[in-house]
Amino acid sequence: MRETDVIIVGGSAAGATAAITARRHYPEKEVLVVRQEKQVPIPCGIPYVFGTLGSAAKNIIPDAMLEKEGIKIVVETVKALDPPKQMVSTTAGEIGYERLILATGSLPVRLPVAGAEKDGAFPIFKDIAHLEALQKRIQTATHVVVIGGGFIGIEFADEIQKLGGKTVTVLEIAPHCLSLAYDEEFCVEMEEMLKSRGVNIRTNVKVVEIAGDKQVQAVRLSDGTSIPAEVVIFGIGAVPNIEIAKTAGLKLGPTGAIAVDRAMRTSCEHIFACGDCAEKVSFFGGRPSPLRLASIATLEARIAGANLYDIRREHDGTVGVWSTAIGNLAMATAGLTETTARQNGYNCVAVIVEGPNRHPGGMPGGASTKLKLVFEKNTGVLLGGQVRGNESAGEIINIVSACIQKRMTAEDIAMFQTGTHPALTASPIAYHLVNAAEIAIARMRAVKQPNDTERQ
Amino acid sequence: MRETDVIIVGGSAAGATAAITARRHYPEKEVLVVRQEKQVPIPCGIPYVFGTLGSAAKNIIPDAMLEKEGIKIVVETVKALDPPKQMVSTTAGEIGYERLILATGSLPVRLPVAGAEKDGAFPIFKDIAHLEALQKRIQTATHVVVIGGGFIGIEFADEIQKLGGKTVTVLEIAPHCLSLAYDEEFCVEMEEMLKSRGVNIRTNVKVVEIAGDKQVQAVRLSDGTSIPAEVVIFGIGAVPNIEIAKTAGLKLGPTGAIAVDRAMRTSCEHIFACGDCAEKVSFFGGRPSPLRLASIATLEARIAGANLYDIRREHDGTVGVWSTAIGNLAMATAGLTETTARQNGYNCVAVIVEGPNRHPGGMPGGASTKLKLVFEKNTGVLLGGQVRGNESAGEIINIVSACIQKRMTAEDIAMFQTGTHPALTASPIAYHLVNAAEIAIARMRAVKQPNDTERQ
Repeated sequence: MRETDVIIVGGSAAGATAAITARRHYPEKEVLVVRQEKQVPIPCGIPYVFGTLGSAAKNIIPDAMLEKEGIKIVVETVKALDPPKQMVSTTAGEIGYERLILATGSLPVRLPVAGAEKDGAFPIFKDIAHLEALQKRIQTATHVVVIGGGFIGIEFADEIQKLGGKTVTVLEIAPHCLSLAYDEEFCVEMEEMLKSRGVNIRTNVKVVEIAGDKQVQAVRLSDGTSIPAEVVIFGIGAVPNIEIAKTAGLKLGPTGAIAVDRAMRTSCEHIFACGDCAEKVSFFGGRPSPLRLASIATLEARIAGANLYDIRREHDGTVGVWSTAIGNLAMATAGLTETTARQNGYNCVAVIVEGPNRHPGGMPGGASTKLKLVFEKNTGVLLGGQVRGNESAGEIINIVSACIQKRMTAEDIAMFQTGTHPALTASPIAYHLVNAAEIAIARMRAVKQPNDTERQ
Repeated sequence: MRETDVIIVGGSAAGATAAITARRHYPEKEVLVVRQEKQVPIPCGIPYVFGTLGSAAKNIIPDAMLEKEGIKIVVETVKALDPPKQMVSTTAGEIGYERLILATGSLPVRLPVAGAEKDGAFPIFKDIAHLEALQKRIQTATHVVVIGGGFIGIEFADEIQKLGGKTVTVLEIAPHCLSLAYDEEFCVEMEEMLKSRGVNIRTNVKVVEIAGDKQVQAVRLSDGTSIPAEVVIFGIGAVPNIEIAKTAGLKLGPTGAIAVDRAMRTSCEHIFACGDCAEKVSFFGGRPSPLRLASIATLEARIAGANLYDIRREHDGTVGVWSTAIGNLAMATAGLTETTARQNGYNCVAVIVEGPNRHPGGMPGGASTKLKLVFEKNTGVLLGGQVRGNESAGEIINIVSACIQKRMTAEDIAMFQTGTHPALTASPIAYHLVNAAEIAIARMRAVKQPNDTERQ
C-alpha cells in the first residue's frame, strides 16, 4: 500500500488551493492530489469555452501551479474511504494518509421534468470530454435554450449568441434573472444588456417538459407555449458530490453536503472537507448557505489546508462575493441585497450612487459606475453592496467585501482613505463608496421613514 | 455686512468636499464657498489637459456637484480673516460666519536656482489661464524639460510627448523616478515604459541653472552638461498657501502648514483647515507627513465638514494612497514601501507576487499584475502595498488601503473572501492579495533571515 502524509481528493479550485495551502503551512509534509481528470477545467471559465476562448483546452488549471509547490498529482478515481484505517481505495490501489481533505465538488442537476434525460439536454459537467461534446452540439444547433437565469445561465447564453446564427433563449422561473444576487434595478440592467445583444429572455416561466423523440426538439412551458430547441442547457445549480463521504459514514449537514465545523473538520478525526461538497453557513445569521462558488471553495480550502495538524483558522461564515460580465457591462455583488436583507429581518438603509469612473468623465474609458450599499440602520454596519460598471467593478466589490468582513460601519467607510486617479477611478470628491456611506449616514441621522431607498 | 453660517475658503478638492460634507451633516446650515477662480480645474486631471483632454476647459470640477447640495458659491478673493469677529474680508466686502473652513490649497514652487524666473519656466498653478498659457507655449516648443520625476512630472512628460515632434526630458535628482512612492523594482518598470514611449529620463542629476536670455534656452546640470529647452516645467511639489491664516494669527505647524488637531480644528475656535494648506501626520508613527494629494484633502474635508458644530470624526493619520498611469501601465501604492518601512525602523516581511489578471490568462484584457505587500514581521500587520497592472490596479490599491486602515494582518488577508471572475480578475486560486499574504505567513513562521524580499 502506498503511504503519504496528506491526501486531497479532487483537483479543482478547492482541491488545488487546499494542496497549496497544506504545503505552505506544513512544508515538511508530503501532499498528494488524487483526482479523476487528466486536466481540470477552470470552473468559472467554462461558459467562455463556447465563445471567447473557443475550446475547452484553453480553460485548464495549470498543473505547474501545484508542481512548483512540490505537490504530487495522481489521476485515479477514489472508490472508497476507510476512516479508521486512514486509507483511500482508488482505481489503482490503496493509499494511506495522516490527514485527508475531501474536495469532491458538486454535480450539476437536470430539471426534474419529463424529457430531461433526452439527447441534447445537457447539465454542465466540469469535464473536458463533456464540454467538447456540448460544444459540438451547439455548433450545429440553431435553437439553444438555457434553463436558469443565474450568472452561469446568462454567461452561457451570451457566449453562445456570440457564435452567430442561433436563437438563444434564457428561461427563468423568477421575475428576473440574477435575482438571488442583485436587487431588481441591477437585474433589469443586465436583462436589457442581454436583449440588446440578441439573447431572448423569458422570466416568470416554468418548464413542464423537454419535448422531442429521442432528441430534444422543444421546451414546453406551463403557459402552453413551446420554444424550439435542439440543445437545452441546465444552468440551475448543482448538488454536493458526497457519495464517498456518505458511504464512509461521515455525517451530512442540513443541505445534504458534508457536515463541517468552523475549522472545516468533518465528523471524522483527520478528515476535512471544503468547496462545493462541504456544508456552508452564512456570515449573516449563521444559517445554512446555499451558495457554491469557486471563491468560497478556495477560502474553505485555505482554512482546511492550514488546519490539518493544528487548528489555525476558523470560518466566519460565507459572505458571498461574486461578479459577472456581459460585453462591457460588469456587475458584482457582496453580502446581502436590500431584498435579502429585509427578508432576513434587517432594518436597512440602502443608498444608490451613480457617476463616472474617471475624472473628468471625458477621460478615456469613462463610463458610469453604479454602486448600491445596504447598511443596518441602527448600527450602521455594512450588510452588502452591488456594483455595475466596467472592469474595475470586479475589484470594487472586493473593497466592499473587505468592509463587510471587518463589519465596518458607514462611518468607517466615510473615513476611507482612497487612492484615485483621472485615468483609473472616480474623483476623490465623489468616490462612490465614500459618497454612498456619507449619504447613508445623513439618512440614518435624519428622522425619516425607514426602509426606503434613496437614489443620488 | 453679509452673514452666513459656514464659509469655506477655496473651491478645489478640499473646499468642494468640505462644503458637501457640511451640508450633509448640518443640513439646516447655510454653506458658502468663497473662491477666487470662476472655474476650478480638477487638480489630478491637470497633466491630461495637455494631451488626452486637449484643453483646460475639459478638466473642470462641475459646480452642479455643489449646487445640487444647496451650496452657494461666490467668486471673490479673500483678503483677510478676523477670527475674533468671525468675519472674512474679500474683494467684494465682508462676510460674517459661525464656522470657517480654510481650504486654500498650495502654491507650486520653482527650483531655487539661477534663471528659475525666466520666461518659459513654469510652475504648475491650478489656474485655467495659467494652464492655457503653458499649453500655448508647449505647442510651439520642440524641447521640453520637466524637472521632477514624481507622478506629476512623469504624467506631464508623457502627455506632452503625445503631442508628437518634441523632445521631452524628465530630470530627477534621486536614483529613480517615483522613488518616494515605490520600491525600485516598480520604479524601473515605469521608467522603461516612459522610455519606450519616447520620454528621456535622466536620474541622479542636479539642476544648477535655467539658462537663456530673457527666455529659457537650456537647463544646465551639475555635471556640466546642458539640455536644450524652450519650456521648463517644475514638477517638484508645492508649499501650503497659508498667507491669510498666518496674517490672522493662526498657529502654523512643523512643516509650515496650518496647525490642526485630529478633528481638523486650527488653533482658533470655529476655524478648521483641510487639504494642502493643513498640516498632516502619518498613519505610521504620527510624525509630520509631507504628502499632498487630492484624496488626502477630501478625507480631511470630510472630517472638517462633519466636525463644524460637534466633533464627530478624528483623523487616524495619512496612509498615503495614490496611483498613476502611463499608457496601459497603471501603478498604485498605499502606505509604506519596503524602503520607507525599513527607514522608519520596521522589521518587515515583503512579498511580491505576479500573475495574470484574468483566468484563464487567455481571456481578453489579460495582462500581468504584480503586487507587493509589506508586513510588520512580528505582528503580521500590513504596512503597505504596491500594485502594477492595468485599470483595476486603481481599485486593488483601495482594497490594500482598507486593510492598512483597519490594521489587518497577513492572516486576516489570507482569510479574505474575494469575488473573482474570468473576464475581470485573477483566479480565486491565485488571487494576488491572498496569495501574497499566505506567502508572508509562511515566511513569518519559518526561521529565516529577516529583511529579505521573496519573489514568487
